[in-house]
Amino acid sequence: MPNPALLEAFPTPSDTPFIVEHVADEFTSVCPVTGHPDFGTVTLRFQPRAKRDGGTCVELKSLKLYLQSFRSEGIYYEAVTNRIRDDLAAVMKPAWMLIRTDWKGRGGIRSIVRATSGDVPAQWM
Amino acid sequence: MPNPALLEAFPTPSDTPFIVEHVADEFTSVCPVTGHPDFGTVTLRFQPRAKRDGGTCVELKSLKLYLQSFRSEGIYYEAVTNRIRDDLAAVMKPAWMLIRTDWKGRGGIRSIVRATSGDVPAQWM
Amino acid sequence: MPNPALLEAFPTPSDTPFIVEHVADEFTSVCPVTGHPDFGTVTLRFQPRAKRDGGTCVELKSLKLYLQSFRSEGIYYEAVTNRIRDDLAAVMKPAWMLIRTDWKGRGGIRSIVRATSGDVPAQWM
Amino acid sequence: MPNPALLEAFPTPSDTPFIVEHVADEFTSVCPVTGHPDFGTVTLRFQPRAKRDGGTCVELKSLKLYLQSFRSEGIYYEAVTNRIRDDLAAVMKPAWMLIRTDWKGRGGIRSIVRATSGDVPAQWM
Amino acid sequence: MPNPALLEAFPTPSDTPFIVEHVADEFTSVCPVTGHPDFGTVTLRFQPRAKRDGGTCVELKSLKLYLQSFRSEGIYYEAVTNRIRDDLAAVMKPAWMLIRTDWKGRGGIRSIVRATSGDVPAQWM
Amino acid sequence: MPNPALLEAFPTPSDTPFIVEHVADEFTSVCPVTGHPDFGTVTLRFQPRAKRDGGTCVELKSLKLYLQSFRSEGIYYEAVTNRIRDDLAAVMKPAWMLIRTDWKGRGGIRSIVRATSGDVPAQWM
Amino acid sequence: MPNPALLEAFPTPSDTPFIVEHVADEFTSVCPVTGHPDFGTVTLRFQPRAKRDGGTCVELKSLKLYLQSFRSEGIYYEAVTNRIRDDLAAVMKPAWMLIRTDWKGRGGIRSIVRATSGDVPAQWM
Amino acid sequence: MPNPALLEAFPTPSDTPFIVEHVADEFTSVCPVTGHPDFGTVTLRFQPRAKRDGGTCVELKSLKLYLQSFRSEGIYYEAVTNRIRDDLAAVMKPAWMLIRTDWKGRGGIRSIVRATSGDVPAQWM
Amino acid sequence: MPNPALLEAFPTPSDTPFIVEHVADEFTSVCPVTGHPDFGTVTLRFQPRAKRDGGTCVELKSLKLYLQSFRSEGIYYEAVTNRIRDDLAAVMKPAWMLIRTDWKGRGGIRSIVRATSGDVPAQWM
Amino acid sequence: MPNPALLEAFPTPSDTPFIVEHVADEFTSVCPVTGHPDFGTVTLRFQPRAKRDGGTCVELKSLKLYLQSFRSEGIYYEAVTNRIRDDLAAVMKPAWMLIRTDWKGRGGIRSIVRATSGDVPAQWM
Repeated sequence: MPNPALLEAFPTPSDTPFIVEHVADEFTSVCPVTGHPDFGTVTLRFQPRAKRDGGTCVELKSLKLYLQSFRSEGIYYEAVTNRIRDDLAAVMKPAWMLIRTDWKGRGGIRSIVRATSGDVPAQWM
Repeated sequence: MPNPALLEAFPTPSDTPFIVEHVADEFTSVCPVTGHPDFGTVTLRFQPRAKRDGGTCVELKSLKLYLQSFRSEGIYYEAVTNRIRDDLAAVMKPAWMLIRTDWKGRGGIRSIVRATSGDVPAQWM
Repeated sequence: MPNPALLEAFPTPSDTPFIVEHVADEFTSVCPVTGHPDFGTVTLRFQPRAKRDGGTCVELKSLKLYLQSFRSEGIYYEAVTNRIRDDLAAVMKPAWMLIRTDWKGRGGIRSIVRATSGDVPAQWM
Repeated sequence: MPNPALLEAFPTPSDTPFIVEHVADEFTSVCPVTGHPDFGTVTLRFQPRAKRDGGTCVELKSLKLYLQSFRSEGIYYEAVTNRIRDDLAAVMKPAWMLIRTDWKGRGGIRSIVRATSGDVPAQWM
Repeated sequence: MPNPALLEAFPTPSDTPFIVEHVADEFTSVCPVTGHPDFGTVTLRFQPRAKRDGGTCVELKSLKLYLQSFRSEGIYYEAVTNRIRDDLAAVMKPAWMLIRTDWKGRGGIRSIVRATSGDVPAQWM
Repeated sequence: MPNPALLEAFPTPSDTPFIVEHVADEFTSVCPVTGHPDFGTVTLRFQPRAKRDGGTCVELKSLKLYLQSFRSEGIYYEAVTNRIRDDLAAVMKPAWMLIRTDWKGRGGIRSIVRATSGDVPAQWM
Repeated sequence: MPNPALLEAFPTPSDTPFIVEHVADEFTSVCPVTGHPDFGTVTLRFQPRAKRDGGTCVELKSLKLYLQSFRSEGIYYEAVTNRIRDDLAAVMKPAWMLIRTDWKGRGGIRSIVRATSGDVPAQWM
Repeated sequence: MPNPALLEAFPTPSDTPFIVEHVADEFTSVCPVTGHPDFGTVTLRFQPRAKRDGGTCVELKSLKLYLQSFRSEGIYYEAVTNRIRDDLAAVMKPAWMLIRTDWKGRGGIRSIVRATSGDVPAQWM
Repeated sequence: MPNPALLEAFPTPSDTPFIVEHVADEFTSVCPVTGHPDFGTVTLRFQPRAKRDGGTCVELKSLKLYLQSFRSEGIYYEAVTNRIRDDLAAVMKPAWMLIRTDWKGRGGIRSIVRATSGDVPAQWM
Repeated sequence: MPNPALLEAFPTPSDTPFIVEHVADEFTSVCPVTGHPDFGTVTLRFQPRAKRDGGTCVELKSLKLYLQSFRSEGIYYEAVTNRIRDDLAAVMKPAWMLIRTDWKGRGGIRSIVRATSGDVPAQWM
């Protein structure tokens, strides 16, 4: 089941603002209605808080393991997206963050869900 | 015939605003003038109301079955688009919603119809 | 000859504003100077007036027949474009409308002509 | 030699503003320094004045013959562009007009020249 | 290990502002968690200070050798990006500078990190 | 060696503002550090001053010969770009001018340098 | 239900061999297992027998109506393909014929089925 | 775990040879060494035996469920490919069959594995 | 008028067979019927005879001037192609030669003409 | 001037036949007629003789320096191609070799020259 305890963060290396983007192509969870697997891409974009304010960045291997923990979870697209946003925001407390999920077609329907934390500048939406 | 009773919704998982997009490539209905089948793509984009305000999201399998219920209906492109907008707005009462239909050529003419509910931000049109 | 009597319209299905786009790839008329055939694409984009205001949408098969009525007409690109705009505006009295014609090369020259009715929003030009 | 007497215009068919674009791919003139032929594309974009103000449009075949009259002329890229702008502006007195010439490479250098008449809206530059 | 002493700069040739962009496709460092190699592209974009103010530009071969000095370093993506920004800013004291790193996928996740120095104009982000 | 005496200009043909762009794909000079040849593309974009103000345009064959005069010169990318800007500005005194050089990869690093004269409008940068 | 009586043929116009290809993008039938609609493309490629041998070609509008007659039929991909091959072979008795069906994804699986009549030359498979 | 009992087949509809191809984009299993998930595409191409010889085709939904049964299995790429080949050959006893698996990159390495049953014609490999 | 006296050749540098291809994108002549200009591409492909046999290659600048000599000639596509073949064969006496002309559309028709000298190997046609 | 003494070779590592291809995008020499620089791409493809037969491969840095030695040489395209073939064949005595040169346009004419050594298999031409 989704396990935020897997997430690790390390202190951001700088006081100067910078922006990080991770794109995970191989996400899979399970449809809570049909029990069939869902496949999608998860994009994470954020600006960590400054180092002097205790800002952190998510560690990449821990992010991979955390995303893998959805593998057997029956969960809606919308809930996946909000859950990832909430878990990562709790760990990193970023200046701002965007989570976007792109889902492969199921029953002839493709889907995209976007959730945000903080005030995402327009050019990064 | 189009059957909005097929539509189901589940409570939105969050109070934070987020945006959902579903693209259905395999829509078909019937031309009310000639009786020939029409083929098109239906795109649904919306922001649910917040969880604390009773916001909901349309369930994907129910959306598929609802769209399939147009299969034998003789109906204009424009009416299809407005009907889907009205039925989904009644079920979800979203913060805003856009319905876009793209129709394959018939008699050498391709068509696109867009209908909205609420105040769609410019970047999501 | 161009025959606006072929155009039929049906009542728009909604009071909520929506936008319709038809693209006809197979338009042909005749050059009034050389007598040679011209080939082009006609794009029609419009917002019907609201249902309560008697708004209408052009019926697709009638549009096809109307466009076919230019087949033997000797007429300039510019006049084709304005004529279609005038005939459709008379039948539908839309909130706004754009007619764009894209002409294949003749004598090594390709042409595009745009004509409007009402106040076309910038993003739809 | 360039012969503006070849240009003919016909009355614009409408009082409503509209926009015309002609693209001539097969322009050729002669380099005044080396005597070698130059090859280029001429793009003409303009809005005619209203019909009630005596607005006119250039006739397409006359435009072709006019552009052919540069075939043996030794003339700089910059002068070609300004000459076409001046000759067409004199014949049509358009609301606004843009002339753009794109020249094939000579000595490893490709060139583009733009000249305008009146106040060209930014989106048409 | 990353060796900023390898960086050399030469006096900028002009008082007039100008903008330089270097794109290094063949960057490699080591993941500090797994010990596996990382591969990425480093983009450096900056405006040197004016010549009269002692402005300098980084010498290209020295930049290549400096980037090669990360080859055996165990270091996070975020730290690489900030480190390069800090080292180059110390050597060149540019008017402004952007460092962007694009990382090939690891564990199915691709990443992009951006760090800046000074006030980067919006069109150069 | 770079020889600005090769540059020739002719009087601009018009008082109306217009814009010229030349793209030279086959520029080569020599790296002053390694002695290896550098290869790049030089783009020149400018608006000549008006004819009544003595505005001039660079003659294309003279530009070609001038660019060829860098063939054996050991010179930095940044200096090439500023040198061309200075030499052309001295000959033409344009209303504004942009010089952009795009360099092929060397040691795995590709570079772009931009230098300007006068106030280049944003859309021409 | 599939209705081969809708198919009409006309005498082939020539004794010289020639090859015909029809591609129908808007085929739909129903899955016999789940009852959900299937969408696909049907490609028909054949060489009619010679005119002197009584060769015929399928009439295009009758082909459209015949393909539409599968719209409510519950039938496997494989059976669709063989059925069309059999019905058309019975009507036309072609020198050779290939039927290829390309099906949109269902449950993440896309399918292609090919059936032939007579000896299809390798380059037409 | 991989469960061939999920596979169902139905009698092939024809004595005439034909060829079927299924492409499943959403296959996932688990690496037996690292425990991390693997993602790939499975392509199945076969010719069923004739109907009179008891030939069968795999039913599509059962194929989907069978492929989903690898989801939690720790198994090598090579074993996946051979296992699918063996299980499908046992159920269908096809005239010939090709199984091809294309795996997404892991550690910078992408892989393709092909296994066959019977004598696959060269043009179908 | 076409002037073969402009063609110059130089001794081929080798006894070993080799193959030369020149593609001239900027060919223009005049239609003998309408007097309008024609535009096309001329491709010349040949194998010179061996050096010891007096083989020669056409000099490139002379080829350019020769092709320019068709600029004011009223001549059919077919005659252009055969004339170039004859003139070049007379000057070079190649082992074999292919002349191919590709003409831009006139009246909606594009044309290609090929003429050969000697025995052109199949892979070079 | 072209200096084959710059070329170095090292023993081929295998008795089993294999094929090597080098593509040099930045070749430049000088036109012997006009004195202007020529720019092209040189492609070298060869199969070394077996190790036991003393087969060798050209060393890459020495190839770069050798190709740079044409920079100031006035030489025809055809001679460049044959010269490189001869010099490399003398150094490597390959089983077979193809030299192909692709030249950027000069006077509107692009050229390709191919020269071979030994018996080049058809699929490598």
